[in-house]
Amino acid sequence: MLTEGILFTDRYQLTMTQLYHRYGLAERTAQFDYTFRSYPDYGSHQAGYCITAGLGPLLDWMGRTWFGPEEREALRAVRTSTGDRLFEESFIDWLRESDGFGAASIWAVPEGRVVHPKTPILTVEAPLAVAQLLETPLLNRLNYATLIATKTSRVIEAAGGAAVLEFGMRRAPDAAANVATRSALIGGAAGSSNFAASHRLGFDSKGTHAHSMVQVFMADAGSELDAFRAYAEVYPDDCLLLVDTIDTLESGIPNAITVFEELRRRGHRPVGVRLDSGDLAHLAVRSAALLDEAGFEDASIVLSSELDELTIWQIRNQILEEAGGYGVDADRLLGRLVYGVGTRLATSHGYPSPDGVFKLVALESPDGGWRPAIKISETPAKVPDPGRKRLWRVYDRRGTATADLITLDDHDPAGRPIRLVHPSYPEVRRMLTAHQVSEVEPIRVQVMDGGRRTSAGAGDIEAARARRARDLARLDPGVRRLVNPHTYHVSLSPELSDLKQDLIAGFKGP
Amino acid sequence: MLTEGILFTDRYQLTMTQLYHRYGLAERTAQFDYTFRSYPDYGSHQAGYCITAGLGPLLDWMGRTWFGPEEREALRAVRTSTGDRLFEESFIDWLRESDGFGAASIWAVPEGRVVHPKTPILTVEAPLAVAQLLETPLLNRLNYATLIATKTSRVIEAAGGAAVLEFGMRRAPDAAANVATRSALIGGAAGSSNFAASHRLGFDSKGTHAHSMVQVFMADAGSELDAFRAYAEVYPDDCLLLVDTIDTLESGIPNAITVFEELRRRGHRPVGVRLDSGDLAHLAVRSAALLDEAGFEDASIVLSSELDELTIWQIRNQILEEAGGYGVDADRLLGRLVYGVGTRLATSHGYPSPDGVFKLVALESPDGGWRPAIKISETPAKVPDPGRKRLWRVYDRRGTATADLITLDDHDPAGRPIRLVHPSYPEVRRMLTAHQVSEVEPIRVQVMDGGRRTSAGAGDIEAARARRARDLARLDPGVRRLVNPHTYHVSLSPELSDLKQDLIAGFKGP
Repeated sequence: MLTEGILFTDRYQLTMTQLYHRYGLAERTAQFDYTFRSYPDYGSHQAGYCITAGLGPLLDWMGRTWFGPEEREALRAVRTSTGDRLFEESFIDWLRESDGFGAASIWAVPEGRVVHPKTPILTVEAPLAVAQLLETPLLNRLNYATLIATKTSRVIEAAGGAAVLEFGMRRAPDAAANVATRSALIGGAAGSSNFAASHRLGFDSKGTHAHSMVQVFMADAGSELDAFRAYAEVYPDDCLLLVDTIDTLESGIPNAITVFEELRRRGHRPVGVRLDSGDLAHLAVRSAALLDEAGFEDASIVLSSELDELTIWQIRNQILEEAGGYGVDADRLLGRLVYGVGTRLATSHGYPSPDGVFKLVALESPDGGWRPAIKISETPAKVPDPGRKRLWRVYDRRGTATADLITLDDHDPAGRPIRLVHPSYPEVRRMLTAHQVSEVEPIRVQVMDGGRRTSAGAGDIEAARARRARDLARLDPGVRRLVNPHTYHVSLSPELSDLKQDLIAGFKGP
Repeated sequence: MLTEGILFTDRYQLTMTQLYHRYGLAERTAQFDYTFRSYPDYGSHQAGYCITAGLGPLLDWMGRTWFGPEEREALRAVRTSTGDRLFEESFIDWLRESDGFGAASIWAVPEGRVVHPKTPILTVEAPLAVAQLLETPLLNRLNYATLIATKTSRVIEAAGGAAVLEFGMRRAPDAAANVATRSALIGGAAGSSNFAASHRLGFDSKGTHAHSMVQVFMADAGSELDAFRAYAEVYPDDCLLLVDTIDTLESGIPNAITVFEELRRRGHRPVGVRLDSGDLAHLAVRSAALLDEAGFEDASIVLSSELDELTIWQIRNQILEEAGGYGVDADRLLGRLVYGVGTRLATSHGYPSPDGVFKLVALESPDGGWRPAIKISETPAKVPDPGRKRLWRVYDRRGTATADLITLDDHDPAGRPIRLVHPSYPEVRRMLTAHQVSEVEPIRVQVMDGGRRTSAGAGDIEAARARRARDLARLDPGVRRLVNPHTYHVSLSPELSDLKQDLIAGFKGP
């Protein structure tokens, strides 16, 4: 479909590409970097790291997309202000004959890894026209996916080991709901309510029933208890009941216990209850007390309703304060909780607008050498790092990540003292001696070489989940803090910093 | 594809549907209402109305979607906790043999119209199973679309008649970028940078070039002026130049004027410039002064960079203050401005999470009559209005919309005094005499009758744009205010209010 192919792009990518073609620049090799400018700031809380996501589906899309007959017809239909064709047939012919993304190579930080602002998370090397045409679809796919994986990872940390389920489809942005599901799984969610996306990714979808089921029985002269009994009859081994349609403590929990007792007598093990309104922490404590008293100490208690990382963190703290007063063991209760997180996860509530960019950093000259490209801004932090580069992660003696280091492409910092220069203020420098460093890890891998996928696992969700878990274990707790996290260091090598400052000086020059 | 069909849904819709099938409820006719609970609150500013969108694509989807072989296989793959199949073959057979959405009828407020919270914007009447299965995809499609159409309408009003272009794809949520484009056009945008979506909807896409084009020429030992000349050469009648790659006033505008003069000598009319950073209001004034001096009084000045309704409103005010000091006519300048609005539009910045819901309101009884359904909440405002209903808009003698009135299905309030009851506090009542009312308009139309589309124009963008313009002209300026708008009245008829209170009382009963 036209709206899902190569013309899923901003028009200016096409007008620029035609110009490159006309000026003999279209096939000159270029490098563009994908980077983002700042950590998500959700208002009352802030991220100190991001989890990268979206690469696998992007590579899949590149593998099947270029200008076909439908796309070429659409280009022919565009008119200038004087009524002529905007796109010439010679340009359209060139697009048709071009190798398209078959000429692209990509180096990228794999999905699921911790990443930081102003680092080249991904670099595309391709003919200028091809790299330029990739900009919009690449940003569109990486920005949202990374935002949701990051938000999920924060929710997972707030939940402190309890399972988190993604329930966001109904309020996620249209078809992006499927991307939210995939990104949530990369970010650490235990599962999702999204049936088809889960199935396709090899996960079991989650969920039982809504208020409407109870309403149906009541509108049909039945009761909440009738609805619960019906559910237990149809799903005796998967019986998780939503208990707040009428009144959680007065009706829902007692009715659920009645049905659970009936199930137990028939030899089945009830799964648990879901609370979806009211003071969730208080109701969880009171529900746990009632379930325990009836002998259902193992029944899960699923909490949902406008949850996010701060709310979950608050709920857990309230439970620690309140549980004892009702004879409930707080730690046991926390261990049986499951969090269903929907709207606020799938919309990255508080920070819906990612700031990822894709910038030209180098252009091959006609004689074959590379020329670094730069864009000047009055804000030093907005000047992209020029040239062809590599990205490293430096671990301290404890094995904790202490800095991300960007170097020029021919530089390997391993095995010697590491010099770190501030990316915007070159006078700010520090040095790590060899004995302060336990590892220097190149964190990007080549995932595409001349259009050929070179990393079979680039879209593997389980591998991405494992990467996230491993990276978080090596991240300073201060950086992982939900509110006002400690700032992680991103540094340049002295050589890169010098190149950048030289280019800035030359730019401002005579 | 599995992830775009009927299984693009929350799993619990399927488990509930199987239960309805087992209990002989699946084919009982039900009514569900789509409504939203509150106006968007963007933090520092708030909406006083919404613009409905998303209906056309939803109806298209319903027309092509049901359980096919791939969907049935996916259902068969789901296991219970004890390893049995969760979905029985008899249920899957029933789904296959069912008419699906061919049994659904829908009444809805057409796209582009002003709508308010807690009104039944759309009602589905269908077999219970079919209506239940529609919930997730319906909410997913209407929620985001309405949010973006609403945001756009606010931006349009802030722009005060100037053209607004949607530039949001790169930071829109993945494939929802296409929905953002469609919704922005419904909300009043003059165009979008999204090539394919614009083309498909019959609009010309917008956009010229990015900073990268200037960077390419500079990295290739050229200059900004070389880049501009190349652009003018390729697009002599569509020449709009981005002037802030180096320095807007010192480099970009002077170079653009040089190129515009060359174009003029060759008989072409330059289109204008785009400013994408810095103090946009100040730079617009200074750029206008320079363009005027060179005789390009008609050249457009496109502003972009993190714009939203408040920023645009501030820019316009600053221009009114500042233009005179530079000899620029403020009103003329405001008239030549174009606003490119991207990220903050496509993500509904400040309010990314819509709160639309789809609730059971009536169920047909086995004897053929209707039974109203209700869901109780401790918050009166969250109790949905029960039963089969109609939605009216009441206009005062000036022709201004004064209230939306929800009545029972057999009630026509036209031509007599209109009694309005507060939806949550039934003691709050008022009456409009016949001479206070100029029109009582039924604002929903039947768009589907037993699966058949009954309103050919349900997806027509131009018709939706016209509806929005007409509705805004009939909306009180206080309600349209960007900040702290006046609250529009939504009322119930006395009969509906009585039914609701009776059901609440019965629910809480003995």
